[in-house]
Amino acid sequence: MKNTFGQNISVTIYGESHGKAIGVVLDGFAPGIPVDEAFMQRQLTLRRPSGKISTARQEPDPFQILSGVYENKTTGTPICIMIPNTQTKSKDYSATRALARPGHADYTAHCKYHGFEDFRGGGHFSGRITAGLVAGGAIAISALKAKNILIGTHIKSCGGVKDRDFAELNSDIQELNQKIFAVLDATQEKMMQEKISETAQKGDSIGGVLETAIINMPAGVGEPWFDTIEGVLAHALFSIPAIKGVQFGDAFDMVDNYGSQYNDSFRMQENHVITETNHNAGINGGITNGMPILFRCAVKPTPSIYQVQKTINFFENQNADLQIKGRHDPAIIHRARVVVDSITAFVLCDVLSGRYGTDWLTKI
Amino acid sequence: MKNTFGQNISVTIYGESHGKAIGVVLDGFAPGIPVDEAFMQRQLTLRRPSGKISTARQEPDPFQILSGVYENKTTGTPICIMIPNTQTKSKDYSATRALARPGHADYTAHCKYHGFEDFRGGGHFSGRITAGLVAGGAIAISALKAKNILIGTHIKSCGGVKDRDFAELNSDIQELNQKIFAVLDATQEKMMQEKISETAQKGDSIGGVLETAIINMPAGVGEPWFDTIEGVLAHALFSIPAIKGVQFGDAFDMVDNYGSQYNDSFRMQENHVITETNHNAGINGGITNGMPILFRCAVKPTPSIYQVQKTINFFENQNADLQIKGRHDPAIIHRARVVVDSITAFVLCDVLSGRYGTDWLTKI
Amino acid sequence: MKNTFGQNISVTIYGESHGKAIGVVLDGFAPGIPVDEAFMQRQLTLRRPSGKISTARQEPDPFQILSGVYENKTTGTPICIMIPNTQTKSKDYSATRALARPGHADYTAHCKYHGFEDFRGGGHFSGRITAGLVAGGAIAISALKAKNILIGTHIKSCGGVKDRDFAELNSDIQELNQKIFAVLDATQEKMMQEKISETAQKGDSIGGVLETAIINMPAGVGEPWFDTIEGVLAHALFSIPAIKGVQFGDAFDMVDNYGSQYNDSFRMQENHVITETNHNAGINGGITNGMPILFRCAVKPTPSIYQVQKTINFFENQNADLQIKGRHDPAIIHRARVVVDSITAFVLCDVLSGRYGTDWLTKI
Amino acid sequence: MKNTFGQNISVTIYGESHGKAIGVVLDGFAPGIPVDEAFMQRQLTLRRPSGKISTARQEPDPFQILSGVYENKTTGTPICIMIPNTQTKSKDYSATRALARPGHADYTAHCKYHGFEDFRGGGHFSGRITAGLVAGGAIAISALKAKNILIGTHIKSCGGVKDRDFAELNSDIQELNQKIFAVLDATQEKMMQEKISETAQKGDSIGGVLETAIINMPAGVGEPWFDTIEGVLAHALFSIPAIKGVQFGDAFDMVDNYGSQYNDSFRMQENHVITETNHNAGINGGITNGMPILFRCAVKPTPSIYQVQKTINFFENQNADLQIKGRHDPAIIHRARVVVDSITAFVLCDVLSGRYGTDWLTKI
Repeated sequence: MKNTFGQNISVTIYGESHGKAIGVVLDGFAPGIPVDEAFMQRQLTLRRPSGKISTARQEPDPFQILSGVYENKTTGTPICIMIPNTQTKSKDYSATRALARPGHADYTAHCKYHGFEDFRGGGHFSGRITAGLVAGGAIAISALKAKNILIGTHIKSCGGVKDRDFAELNSDIQELNQKIFAVLDATQEKMMQEKISETAQKGDSIGGVLETAIINMPAGVGEPWFDTIEGVLAHALFSIPAIKGVQFGDAFDMVDNYGSQYNDSFRMQENHVITETNHNAGINGGITNGMPILFRCAVKPTPSIYQVQKTINFFENQNADLQIKGRHDPAIIHRARVVVDSITAFVLCDVLSGRYGTDWLTKI
Repeated sequence: MKNTFGQNISVTIYGESHGKAIGVVLDGFAPGIPVDEAFMQRQLTLRRPSGKISTARQEPDPFQILSGVYENKTTGTPICIMIPNTQTKSKDYSATRALARPGHADYTAHCKYHGFEDFRGGGHFSGRITAGLVAGGAIAISALKAKNILIGTHIKSCGGVKDRDFAELNSDIQELNQKIFAVLDATQEKMMQEKISETAQKGDSIGGVLETAIINMPAGVGEPWFDTIEGVLAHALFSIPAIKGVQFGDAFDMVDNYGSQYNDSFRMQENHVITETNHNAGINGGITNGMPILFRCAVKPTPSIYQVQKTINFFENQNADLQIKGRHDPAIIHRARVVVDSITAFVLCDVLSGRYGTDWLTKI
Repeated sequence: MKNTFGQNISVTIYGESHGKAIGVVLDGFAPGIPVDEAFMQRQLTLRRPSGKISTARQEPDPFQILSGVYENKTTGTPICIMIPNTQTKSKDYSATRALARPGHADYTAHCKYHGFEDFRGGGHFSGRITAGLVAGGAIAISALKAKNILIGTHIKSCGGVKDRDFAELNSDIQELNQKIFAVLDATQEKMMQEKISETAQKGDSIGGVLETAIINMPAGVGEPWFDTIEGVLAHALFSIPAIKGVQFGDAFDMVDNYGSQYNDSFRMQENHVITETNHNAGINGGITNGMPILFRCAVKPTPSIYQVQKTINFFENQNADLQIKGRHDPAIIHRARVVVDSITAFVLCDVLSGRYGTDWLTKI
Repeated sequence: MKNTFGQNISVTIYGESHGKAIGVVLDGFAPGIPVDEAFMQRQLTLRRPSGKISTARQEPDPFQILSGVYENKTTGTPICIMIPNTQTKSKDYSATRALARPGHADYTAHCKYHGFEDFRGGGHFSGRITAGLVAGGAIAISALKAKNILIGTHIKSCGGVKDRDFAELNSDIQELNQKIFAVLDATQEKMMQEKISETAQKGDSIGGVLETAIINMPAGVGEPWFDTIEGVLAHALFSIPAIKGVQFGDAFDMVDNYGSQYNDSFRMQENHVITETNHNAGINGGITNGMPILFRCAVKPTPSIYQVQKTINFFENQNADLQIKGRHDPAIIHRARVVVDSITAFVLCDVLSGRYGTDWLTKI
């Protein structure tokens, strides 16, 4: 289905950048999950542009929960979260409307919606729409946390600057979830921010790689065909506008290695099954093996740049030049990170609720 | 849904390596698509092990179409394809059954199916199950071809040996689809095969990268959330047992570049909209823009190797050593290629039929 | 999926009777469908209680379209409609909360949601939730009308009073769609209203049968298994809280007849295929044959009555007596009619969009 | 999805009456369910025509389980059941092919499949296709029985002859499941069979009403919107070719009653919650309340009759007369009963597995 994802727990997304509101409807969550509005607001903060390295739109995302929550707990019925768009006074788009911004969805939206699309500010394609996913994702993240399933994402690389590898996952994840700019190595963090600032000064933009770790997933979850853990996660993650690649474990980095290096030996450790290495990222045959799930997302440079670009006018079917105005992020990777966490949390809640039943998330 | 994929055109997969038969049920194909059994058989040949570089099981895959085809055309009702398993005399697995082969799904299957799984020869996780996808995929590939939509996949790299890049896509695709071992550069092809042979002699295995091109997809197909072309393709592709990473366009290879390098400028070319470069792989905002769709799959080294490996006995919960016997492929990347083409064809037929209606594939 | 219905065009419903808002998210509608807010408001009027024969809650249902509509036309992206709950000052439910109202969902909600349900005013089970379906249904009804596909429903019987049969469908449908109380025979209409008033005076309630006609559906829409037109319509219609039976054509009324009476002979009429009779309700083998689709829904008496009823206290697991207070409808059949029309319209839009593609509803 | 039904446990149906084989693929069943082939064969016997009152085709339905069962237990992977068509020598249909049999799907199939349909013997619309549902349904029925959930269906009326009402459900169900011709009252059973014989002599056909009871369903299963127990069951049941109406509890029979008569009072009975009456058929607000689920299906007279019928030739678009030849059932209601039981069992397994997790059916 188009704007709905998930089978047992589903997320339906709605809204346009300059419409009345954006939001999500979450369905299938067990009744009785605590809903912490302060945590939801805090997660939204991570997605919001901030400081020098982000765009000026400082909308405070004051979300409202319209349904599905009673006395601060989920009821088990659909949770509609709405975030009004308060700064929607659209500038006059008429001059540039038909100029397809390269790397953006203006032209493809036009092909699909035949000119009826709400094009203002990217419309339904705007990164702003992810705010609903983040607000709702906070509920999913909390529910998983109560089951000791933790998710953390860091900026593995950005503009050629690389963060250190994950080490002790539990503490790394906890550290990351305290940070606005999620980098584990403080020196690299500073260098990345400098790199972003430099890029902004050039009127250009930059991307990078996000790396996510999930710990304490039970073994035996996922399907051989076609709902592998890899497939379901990737399906959802590719919705994030800038993501163009997803790999689990070492994938593209190990393709030239031998099977003898890539296979993860099983071992018993205090009556638990572990693997000595984890190149397969905690997943064999599409199913969790109890080891951490690890994946990386390639985040392309944000397409809004301050340079004259060649493009077309799709109303007139002729070539044109385009100079994007306004303020835009030179990088969104640090903001995309919480969207990755949120979508990941939805997917995990979905597969776990399918496996263990609709009440599992609140079952003791 | 578990073993079913697709919304408008769906594929349901069934079978175990050593059971009576494997196969697929295809549903939703337009009535009137020509079904060419010789082409189906020929595609199966591409998946089958062959020559020195592949395993000895030379089963001829004599498929039967049980339903949905009448007078060599699809009827519009479900097409059940069955491939009997003829060489299913199982060796005695009792000694090794509980020894989890590293990199395989034995242990995760056990966690999921609690010992009731048909473990013989990998059961439902066996690469052999993909034969049904290939037989059925031939129908999808033919249907797309009649619409001038062509798919081709080459081995971009294998064991460190790299094929040349795609050049003129139409002729490259046609060349690849004539080849058993799909490499564009004849010198590299020879080197790859040698690399595979060497690896076999060491009792080891090797992986690589498959690169796929799709041409002539109409613009305006796909969804912004969550059924992006990237997401739907990746979801399906990750079912292929050895695939651990999927990237569209340059993704992981361009993450350190600038937006000014990654954005693809739109241009008019003889009244057609094109982009000057195609880093975004023909997809903007999850929707096709009419340019070629390009993606790469990371294929891990096949996990069956001839070396003593450390593992566990999951019945006895203790450590054990495992020496895999029998003959196994040192590489499956050259065989996986036709599975990638087949799954890709199903996904394209699905999204196109959703967009343009159930009869589109045979509409003139 | 739980609170979502439809494959190509989907409806997701949210809200509780005394929460902040109720509403729907509609997805998959073609871009460019005119959205007539006055017509939406007018349809809501039909659902709203009115006059002596309905409950006192006169909430004006001031809906807001939060997304998916731009310049009074659908954009092709999700349409979120919100209806704020303005009269939600809940009375004190603590005394009666655990007393399961017979015929209502209090007890089953408790079994399902374990006490976390928002029980106030029926919560997510309240008939009020159907307002979102009616507001959204107006868009579907308009889209079908532009394709000349018309839907009309009358109260075939209520409390033993029977309306006349459908005669000339086109004019009957048009007449019904002008009426608040949808009965074709004015004398019977008056008698039904009197019957409802009498019932109200007794503190009791009453049900009846709604009969729906759909004209001008193209032939060849629907599936043999399992998405028959009958099955998909019935699935959706049974969501309407009071509906306990659905029959197509004469069904239960013809079970004692012979095949020779029930078969509908095909005939050519001015180059069109018709059937001489229409006992099969325009559907053969689950697929439309171009004749009118006709079905009836059994609407049970509304369960809220003003008599002491025997029940249980499900917190204390003991028997109790219950006297419902407040004002409640003695009949809802005249209000349910527009909900039937709305749900029917969604289903038709869904199956038509699946058959002919996502743009069909606005294709000329 | 078209020929697939169910979310957690799904059934995919394939085959044509005169093709190579018919069958089903069942997916999502818990691993470890005993598969009793003798019981499957016995259920098929109930569906098969027999004696004077049924058609002559006495095909023994020798099914094969191709996958998903190992050592007589489900493995948890898809179960493909195939029933070869052994008597498929088609008579020459060329003379009558374009003559639409009234009440059959010939014409609608032609509208949908544009002449590519396998029309022989009704093709994919043939009642014979239900054999796969019955073979597979036996597994679902067994799984439910192990959970003490029992299903039984009797012929409530046929040709005006009425069976007695259900009395003690447990013993009635057990009695019915021993019978070939499922009528509770022996006198009525004889009269029904006579009625069917008389009808056959007239060259006509007859329908009736099937009534089904389900006992021991846990309370709290089902959804308020849109997957009500009523809606999901009705959706599936309407696939049975002759079913044109479904009602739960008294529905159409109680529409003229008052709420005070229709409401079912809750009571405690030995620490269990029961209702004193069960007009709502064990379902409130779409969710089970623990009482028996009761529904009736209107089965139309089988459309094949031995009388000259008016119809069209849809190749030539002109009127024609049709005299059906061969042997056909004067009634199929006694055979449809086991199809109702089978489909009901699939739906219950599906909703229960969704509610309690994929392993529930074999969890002790």
